Amino acid sequence: MKNFFISFEGIEGSGKSTQVGKLSSKLREEGKAIEVVREPGGTRVGELIRHITHDRENVELTAVAEAYLMAAARAQLVRDIIKPALQSGKIVIADRFIDSSFAYQGYGRELGEGTIFEMNKLAIDQVFPDLTFFLDISPEVGFARRNGTEKVDRLDLQQKDFYERVYRGYKKLAQKYKERYVVVDGSKSIDDVAEGIWMEVIEKIKG
Amino acid sequence: MKNFFISFEGIEGSGKSTQVGKLSSKLREEGKAIEVVREPGGTRVGELIRHITHDRENVELTAVAEAYLMAAARAQLVRDIIKPALQSGKIVIADRFIDSSFAYQGYGRELGEGTIFEMNKLAIDQVFPDLTFFLDISPEVGFARRNGTEKVDRLDLQQKDFYERVYRGYKKLAQKYKERYVVVDGSKSIDDVAEGIWMEVIEKIKG
Repeated sequence: MKNFFISFEGIEGSGKSTQVGKLSSKLREEGKAIEVVREPGGTRVGELIRHITHDRENVELTAVAEAYLMAAARAQLVRDIIKPALQSGKIVIADRFIDSSFAYQGYGRELGEGTIFEMNKLAIDQVFPDLTFFLDISPEVGFARRNGTEKVDRLDLQQKDFYERVYRGYKKLAQKYKERYVVVDGSKSIDDVAEGIWMEVIEKIKG
Repeated sequence: MKNFFISFEGIEGSGKSTQVGKLSSKLREEGKAIEVVREPGGTRVGELIRHITHDRENVELTAVAEAYLMAAARAQLVRDIIKPALQSGKIVIADRFIDSSFAYQGYGRELGEGTIFEMNKLAIDQVFPDLTFFLDISPEVGFARRNGTEKVDRLDLQQKDFYERVYRGYKKLAQKYKERYVVVDGSKSIDDVAEGIWMEVIEKIKG
């Protein structure tokens, strides 16, 4: 298994980052050379961009500018980290990649999947994930996990439609890109989810 | 003269910012409602992006990521400032706009004018300058002005080819977009240049 690129996708609270950590540890135990990245970020420039997109004071950030910022961070990450890692035979594991732009800016912000694809062509430079794990949890479960409570606050309610669109977007993407997508039931326990992911990855390693 | 959008272009040291200030003052004296913007920047998000693109420690910024960052800042500026200002009947004066991306990323970084145009379509949302002043000075004169000396240092020499490409790019753009471009001899005195620009603007106001 050379030049292998695995991405993790899902809404906030789906357990992506936890599972990225679990899979990374297991692959390292197996003696595999890996590179773990997150989006936006993963490079000095990307982390500066992350400050802009994640800064709550910048809520005035328009959907289009946000989409370009994500593409900028991605362009840097692909050229600085992902491509060199793949070329040196490493397994790359990404906490979000282009599908996040499809789901969040394309569907959530309603810019359209096609628009986002066109915008990102130059950014990704033909680098696509070979395997994408979609950690499937409903927006309601995501809210509850993030808040540590079943209560949904006013801001959450305002954002509910947005997250519903993002979630439905991911469902569409999983259908459209069947050959690389693996849908994982994210409502299961952390260990059960990790086990399911590991089985899939082992199969790919052997194959 | 309503909905009028004037941009200033040229290499560093060409006197753009000085002339933007001069023209703004004159238009205000004439009682015109104006909005002055600069790129990248002009919005909270845009100024944060400017920190990234202008930070010398971030020299590892790739050409493609830089182009996306410029488009992000532009997308925000068009939606937050330029469009609302034009719609309210103001004259907008921009210290750099899309032609800077054509010249710097398209020609200077050799990503191609066409690639930059495609990338920026969504960002500009059909907003083009009605009048563009290209302050024409050679890269050599630009260097000398910026350094306050005729001496050219090692870094300047390394960048010489880049600035030559940018300069030649502007020359091409001035030909291609003749209907909105006015080429001004930037080697003249500040007052002479300002006078020439003012004559052009007056003509447009009357027309």
